[in-house]
Amino acid sequence: MHFETVAELRRAATDLPPGDGEAEAQALARQDLLTKPQGSLGRLEAIAAWLARWQGRAMPALDRVQVIVFAGSHGVTARGVSAFPAEVTAQMVANFSAGGAAINQLAREARASLDVVALEVERPTRDFSAAPAMDEDEFLAAVNAGAGALDEQADLACFGEMGIGNTTTAAALAAALFGGGAERWIGRGTGVDDAGLKRKVAAVADALDRHGKALADPIDAARLVGGRELAAILGATLKARHHGIPVLLDGFVCTAAAAPLAKAVKGGLDHVLAAHCSAEAGHRRLLEELELTPLLDLGMRLGEGSGACLAVNVVRSALACHAGMASFAEAGVSEK
Amino acid sequence: MHFETVAELRRAATDLPPGDGEAEAQALARQDLLTKPQGSLGRLEAIAAWLARWQGRAMPALDRVQVIVFAGSHGVTARGVSAFPAEVTAQMVANFSAGGAAINQLAREARASLDVVALEVERPTRDFSAAPAMDEDEFLAAVNAGAGALDEQADLACFGEMGIGNTTTAAALAAALFGGGAERWIGRGTGVDDAGLKRKVAAVADALDRHGKALADPIDAARLVGGRELAAILGATLKARHHGIPVLLDGFVCTAAAAPLAKAVKGGLDHVLAAHCSAEAGHRRLLEELELTPLLDLGMRLGEGSGACLAVNVVRSALACHAGMASFAEAGVSEK
Repeated sequence: MHFETVAELRRAATDLPPGDGEAEAQALARQDLLTKPQGSLGRLEAIAAWLARWQGRAMPALDRVQVIVFAGSHGVTARGVSAFPAEVTAQMVANFSAGGAAINQLAREARASLDVVALEVERPTRDFSAAPAMDEDEFLAAVNAGAGALDEQADLACFGEMGIGNTTTAAALAAALFGGGAERWIGRGTGVDDAGLKRKVAAVADALDRHGKALADPIDAARLVGGRELAAILGATLKARHHGIPVLLDGFVCTAAAAPLAKAVKGGLDHVLAAHCSAEAGHRRLLEELELTPLLDLGMRLGEGSGACLAVNVVRSALACHAGMASFAEAGVSEK
Repeated sequence: MHFETVAELRRAATDLPPGDGEAEAQALARQDLLTKPQGSLGRLEAIAAWLARWQGRAMPALDRVQVIVFAGSHGVTARGVSAFPAEVTAQMVANFSAGGAAINQLAREARASLDVVALEVERPTRDFSAAPAMDEDEFLAAVNAGAGALDEQADLACFGEMGIGNTTTAAALAAALFGGGAERWIGRGTGVDDAGLKRKVAAVADALDRHGKALADPIDAARLVGGRELAAILGATLKARHHGIPVLLDGFVCTAAAAPLAKAVKGGLDHVLAAHCSAEAGHRRLLEELELTPLLDLGMRLGEGSGACLAVNVVRSALACHAGMASFAEAGVSEK
């Protein structure tokens, strides 16, 4: 899946496969035969049915779970919006490669493969409070890099991000898509102080002023006030839909990155589950706007795909029950 | 650990080891050196510190995770308090042995061993709405069976239960310990209809009337309105405290079973984490009374230790980060 033009991308984002309702219905019917009171596995039952629908088979698989962490650099860091210096993005990419970051441990624990895709980390996007973050070629290159990184044979995908400054980017994009002004979406990110928080609000407010009505189109918004790793997540999430790969959304930045797909067409994110609710202030609001109920709520705010990867274990457990449990008839257990 | 008398049990439940504050402090100090913004792993950081405190070592282990499902039969089922017939308890014990139940799949997924302990399933406790559920010998036998089943070398323990009728038992015990009357604690269990719900409320109300002030002592309450599998969980949870084994609490029945330990002495359940919040109505209230914040909230209401077992994956992930991440210095990542 490769997009030559923004118009092509926009078409792919609106003309979406609806998933396999028959496979979903079969999965739900199977759940009702298993040795447990109907519905007593709660969301684990819904997860099994969701996997069935989007993989297009009543008995889904989780043989290949892919985690991809996308890294990008943000011109808006020049405005002092992060507690950490911008060079940490590249340093953390090296840490991912060396196996020392949280996501390395979480991916191993979840039996997931981990790919790290650095998106021109040495070349930040433009400061979106003063100019478009990316031109169309830059934006499409990032979207295509995201789509290209996704294994078409994956059974489940988790996308994560690393980019000093990118909670400011995510806030700008969320504000562009859902309104309410800069303050509604700004939080402390990696831990800015009160002065830094004010600088974040000002940067987003300036961006909203600067780009104005151009932000009304969700794909344009992703280019104008987005970032390369966010564009890559958009591309990967869209490709996943077209290839029957369910997606676990990570935190605030990933959710904002994918949100244009929900604005582009109703149901555009039906193939994703919100893995967790981050402690970053805007994430809960964003999930509410998207009508997504997170699986986990553990006060995490690290990014890297950490929350999504943790939720892989829940999804694996849901499938283990779905695939491995005996029916009432098989086990000779009396029904109600 | 074996109790000859209720007085001995009461002593063991009040004279508790406080955990290793030094190991906990070391674990927290290590967390602050790892390549992430401080606190950004949220509850995963707290879990690592909790393991350290109760295992008594700054670098905890999870080599042996033990799940034990205790099964018991309840005389109160004669009052029509369950949607399922009483023989399902024994049938489900057979299903556990055959590997067909949810807990079998969840334990395998969590890389935990699974033991099933059937406690005189063919001999129900007396109907506690009319008589003491157990005499002292019966109660101590169940408590000792629970303590005896716990592997002293376990690094983490999960207790589960199976017993048709036991959400009524749990409601009676919760009402005895925390008050508020029968209706506050009654829910639909495996799925009783409205008439069944009324019978549950009436059974608990009768029990509270019948036993009156005798329920003021938490250990006596566990005997008078409890059940064998609940008593076993109490015994196992208490033994875990004395042997440095942290415990994940499952749903409403398990939490009610362990709750007398919190009433016996302040901090009596400090070595447990609430694995999840069940959809069974009384569980959220009970967790609030115990000031426990659940790790998961997925609408599950199956019992068997299913919620606790699911949370093992979260605990494993927390330890994986704690043990495997690089420090800022090791990874050459700039700090704030």
